[in-house]
Amino acid sequence: MINKERIAAEYQQIQDEICAALEALDGKAKFQEEIWERDGGGGGRTRIIQNGNLFEKGGVNFSAVYGKLPEAIKKAFAVDEEDFFATGVSIVIHPNNPHVPIIHMNIRYFELNENMRWFGGGIDLTPHYVIADDATFFHQQLKNVCDKHHADFYAEFKTWADNYFFIKHRNETRGIGGVFYDKLTPEKTGLSYEEIFNFSCDLGRTFAPTYTELVNRHSKDTFTTTHKDWQLLRRGRYVEFNLVYDSGTKFGLETNGRIESILMSLPAQANWFYDFKAIPGSAEQQTLDYLRKGVNWVE
Amino acid sequence: MINKERIAAEYQQIQDEICAALEALDGKAKFQEEIWERDGGGGGRTRIIQNGNLFEKGGVNFSAVYGKLPEAIKKAFAVDEEDFFATGVSIVIHPNNPHVPIIHMNIRYFELNENMRWFGGGIDLTPHYVIADDATFFHQQLKNVCDKHHADFYAEFKTWADNYFFIKHRNETRGIGGVFYDKLTPEKTGLSYEEIFNFSCDLGRTFAPTYTELVNRHSKDTFTTTHKDWQLLRRGRYVEFNLVYDSGTKFGLETNGRIESILMSLPAQANWFYDFKAIPGSAEQQTLDYLRKGVNWVE
Repeated sequence: MINKERIAAEYQQIQDEICAALEALDGKAKFQEEIWERDGGGGGRTRIIQNGNLFEKGGVNFSAVYGKLPEAIKKAFAVDEEDFFATGVSIVIHPNNPHVPIIHMNIRYFELNENMRWFGGGIDLTPHYVIADDATFFHQQLKNVCDKHHADFYAEFKTWADNYFFIKHRNETRGIGGVFYDKLTPEKTGLSYEEIFNFSCDLGRTFAPTYTELVNRHSKDTFTTTHKDWQLLRRGRYVEFNLVYDSGTKFGLETNGRIESILMSLPAQANWFYDFKAIPGSAEQQTLDYLRKGVNWVE
Repeated sequence: MINKERIAAEYQQIQDEICAALEALDGKAKFQEEIWERDGGGGGRTRIIQNGNLFEKGGVNFSAVYGKLPEAIKKAFAVDEEDFFATGVSIVIHPNNPHVPIIHMNIRYFELNENMRWFGGGIDLTPHYVIADDATFFHQQLKNVCDKHHADFYAEFKTWADNYFFIKHRNETRGIGGVFYDKLTPEKTGLSYEEIFNFSCDLGRTFAPTYTELVNRHSKDTFTTTHKDWQLLRRGRYVEFNLVYDSGTKFGLETNGRIESILMSLPAQANWFYDFKAIPGSAEQQTLDYLRKGVNWVE
């Protein structure tokens, strides 16, 4: 029987597996761990990797928090419930090399009571330079996981990601998207809670091999100051998305979460160049042309 | 008689005066101007200064926009009005030297109809290192302007600034505050629209001499990488405030404003160091100790 203790335990296990894989990949940096407790209930294990061979800054965080539901969240969910439980794994990795993409993953479970509980999550990729072959590989990996569990998941969650990871004020997507889903229940999916949970774990476990492949493809690529400046500009866009739109960040700030864990998603350095214009035909402009909704990377 | 055309014209004049003063102060960089038009009505003159002797990046923007009031703003203001007019001058300056403070100023006028119109604005200072003498000088300048117009303005607007320029998730003020006011009307102040307008112009005209004095006090101070890293961290906090809380930024993003003009407030570079802890007794810790509400800098 699936319950919150088992979900939290399995998500912790996934955190361990991913941290081990990323440390092996980097070859130098080790995760620094903070165990923290939340005023009001629960806590987490924040793990940060910094100044590595490959990874400039990244976090692989687990948390399991509970307590009184804040008023703002009650309103947002339109519920009268007093208590909540939430557990999940959240990842953001900012690599050194501009040719290696930024990646984000989250799997989470939220419970208000026996009848109001659901799974959410997603993975999306933000290449500083979009490369079609890599984008197709990434989306194919996600599609394979989705297809194992539900014939409609990939198409539906891919569109959801296009809409979610969208920087409205720039009229551009954050990157090449991926999958995003929220409030998955048996009623909505035809799957049992156990089956939805298994899907979320499979998605979590596709993170490490998928990102490892993408990192290995590009971690030895040479780069110039033009590439680096572009990376810093794209990181600025990442900051804009996370602080202006990201629901997880907002939820964390409003539920009195651990600030340094929530904002681990922000890069070590980001730049804003006033009114940057990409040169027509440049690799930067080609990337901008890809940053729109509805690009189909797999058949 | 005070009307929107005269307010816009005078605010433009103030923009000109401030740009001339800042160029003279910097001695090298010149403002780059973009004249832009807004889809839906109005436009502005964005002026950006970059890579100067003293100023790394800054903007002194004027705009006068009008059109249909967006639904989100209607809700926020709880009004049914269809049309709006808004004009103002907005400034943010990020200096090179960490011993020179970041400064922000805004004066604005907003009109829905003959009976619903008001002035807003403020100036606040964000020293990377808080120095008591400078803070007292800055607040005294603001108090002098306020006192000329209304006995209660300084005390009231100083408290308002403490509450407004507050980074809730960090539990710290953005800097040492200043003054902030909004929706000033004859009904609320006992002053005529003309008198409130004159106050806003006087506040606008205190910007240049006040900032000039502070810049001259510190622009030749030497600094180390420790100072520079701290500046980059404080700029990260500035980004957090502007993207998460600042009403002007939100208004601009929601009314389809010119993005590069709105986000000129973001620094050329900002850094996020995971879980930074200031050394007890250090200049950084002393600054953190000042970043709270209710510090009275003048008698």
